[in-house]
Amino acid sequence: MFRWARPFSTASAFFNNASMASPALRQYSFQVFRDVPPLRQMRRQLVLDKKTVGFVPTMGALHEGHLSLIRQAAAENTDVFVSIFVNPTQFGVNEDLSSYPRTWDSDVAKLEQLNDEFTRLGGDTGRITAILAPTSKVMYPVSPPSSEVDGDGSFVTITPISRKLEGASRPVFFRGVATVCMKLFNIVQADRAYFGQKDIQQTVVIKRMVRDFHVDTEIKIGNTVREHDGLAMSSRNVYLGNRRRAVGLVLYNALKTAEDAYNSGKLARSDILDAANRVASQVLSEQQALSPSERALYEVDYISLADPDTLDEVDSIDPAKGAIISGAIKMTPLEETKPGEECGLGDGQVPVRLIDNLIFKPRT
Amino acid sequence: MFRWARPFSTASAFFNNASMASPALRQYSFQVFRDVPPLRQMRRQLVLDKKTVGFVPTMGALHEGHLSLIRQAAAENTDVFVSIFVNPTQFGVNEDLSSYPRTWDSDVAKLEQLNDEFTRLGGDTGRITAILAPTSKVMYPVSPPSSEVDGDGSFVTITPISRKLEGASRPVFFRGVATVCMKLFNIVQADRAYFGQKDIQQTVVIKRMVRDFHVDTEIKIGNTVREHDGLAMSSRNVYLGNRRRAVGLVLYNALKTAEDAYNSGKLARSDILDAANRVASQVLSEQQALSPSERALYEVDYISLADPDTLDEVDSIDPAKGAIISGAIKMTPLEETKPGEECGLGDGQVPVRLIDNLIFKPRT
Repeated sequence: MFRWARPFSTASAFFNNASMASPALRQYSFQVFRDVPPLRQMRRQLVLDKKTVGFVPTMGALHEGHLSLIRQAAAENTDVFVSIFVNPTQFGVNEDLSSYPRTWDSDVAKLEQLNDEFTRLGGDTGRITAILAPTSKVMYPVSPPSSEVDGDGSFVTITPISRKLEGASRPVFFRGVATVCMKLFNIVQADRAYFGQKDIQQTVVIKRMVRDFHVDTEIKIGNTVREHDGLAMSSRNVYLGNRRRAVGLVLYNALKTAEDAYNSGKLARSDILDAANRVASQVLSEQQALSPSERALYEVDYISLADPDTLDEVDSIDPAKGAIISGAIKMTPLEETKPGEECGLGDGQVPVRLIDNLIFKPRT
Repeated sequence: MFRWARPFSTASAFFNNASMASPALRQYSFQVFRDVPPLRQMRRQLVLDKKTVGFVPTMGALHEGHLSLIRQAAAENTDVFVSIFVNPTQFGVNEDLSSYPRTWDSDVAKLEQLNDEFTRLGGDTGRITAILAPTSKVMYPVSPPSSEVDGDGSFVTITPISRKLEGASRPVFFRGVATVCMKLFNIVQADRAYFGQKDIQQTVVIKRMVRDFHVDTEIKIGNTVREHDGLAMSSRNVYLGNRRRAVGLVLYNALKTAEDAYNSGKLARSDILDAANRVASQVLSEQQALSPSERALYEVDYISLADPDTLDEVDSIDPAKGAIISGAIKMTPLEETKPGEECGLGDGQVPVRLIDNLIFKPRT
């Protein structure tokens, strides 16, 4: 892919949010859109100029996982569009919408750094040329966005996939994801859209939606980006703090132990899942033996071994298809903190749900 | 709008349906597509050539109502795309999917005649350049299309509008309509799509869907096309036969009587609806007094007076907004037929649901 130059432009949109810098005083290396028509105008010109658009939808709070997707998008398209929108309909009524981190200034700074990086790379990569940061009213123009399971509104539902795994404990989650992605896909009309493997069920739901609704956008999946020790990056990790962060690694370790079992020739569900569950139980026992000021506790929501296309649980792995092992644990609030302890945003009192997965590749 | 020439092309698709003429032997003045990728290719070229596409989705069985929409589309676009697809998900489990008329050859003949007409009009109108006649597998590629209210699949739901009026007696209808239209809109990516006022609730649901999901297609509504006596044209009218057709006009007459009341200054719900209901009751009484070989009976499903945007029932018409009066009746099968009587397709034994509506314009 070739790189193409675009003059720096002032932000084209008005920000109500006080945390956003005044657009009149600030120049970005990309255009920022709060509404759809001006973005459409830019998009149409890109079609006529035979440019290609790679789209990375986010809820902000950008971390290395997002940046990795944006790098992939820039490598495969002339233009990268990034959306930043914390979507209310994918949070349940009692879920953590209000505690979801909102970090506009640092997000924009990271995107500017990426464009600097792309400039240094020279002619071999595209650039971020548009940020879509729509208001809730733009995304949900008629009815207020409902988070009720039986709430009224305009929704895309993809079942039965959406009821499994993450959907079992978060019944409106994938309805919200599919709904907002359909809107965003229609707005951006990207050639390619990029999602991280970390949210594996989301990738399966979105790929199904695109296929069933003939969305004219190719879905690309980027590898899960991990910390040095293997913890999957997540916007929610800022709430962990040191103690829960260390213990939270149990999920990845459990899945890796199961992967070892698969790699050593095991195919039976029980062999694979027992390996993972043993790790999860053992670490929990170790923590429970510690005092409340030393330990971090968690609840295992599920550990699943599933078909990679349907997410149906499998009794035995078909070595020609492989499988997906995935899991979710909830890190409960710290019971007691110690003076000076680094407990993360919210002082260790925000419950943090961690998810992770590994793809067992077919064995041929 | 200018007219542009396109050489006659052979049909580009293979037909499984035995009623369709062999494409190798037949030339059309438009391209016929059974699958999406070749249509996409044509559509992309039209964008680059700065042509405009007007889309008329149909279930075939074309009548003057459809042709009127196509004429409007041709007047406002360089290219008209017509889809012919009898959508299974908008028929309930016990509804008349199997009895819906399928009339490929006569539909194509009508479209050819229209293109002849457009040719005679010279440079002031577009032409039909593509017919999309997809298979069910193309439209529902993964799961079989479910008609169950709680069936699994990939659906668009627009509530609460979809539960009102027609939706009350046909619970999956608008889910099916919205779902198939989202697919078709994504495939065709039209500049404008055309729907008839006769299916007024459908127009309200589709306009809401397009707004909520930011579909980049403008929705245009064409007037209801009527027979000389006022009966709204419908693909289902072929099942009526002479006797039920004459009596079925009661719905239009009832709505017109209500309109007279509105035009004479009435605004109260009871004044307007009483006028309509009196007509419906009186005609039914007259029929009931006749012998079974002479009469045609019907059941009134609803007569509604509603807000034009939300379809909420109104107690009193706001003269600044106007209102929609709409109704549905079911013509029941003939009890006895007479020798030689013209009873329509299915010999007068197919129940026929008739709908109609009038828009009360704001009074300023």
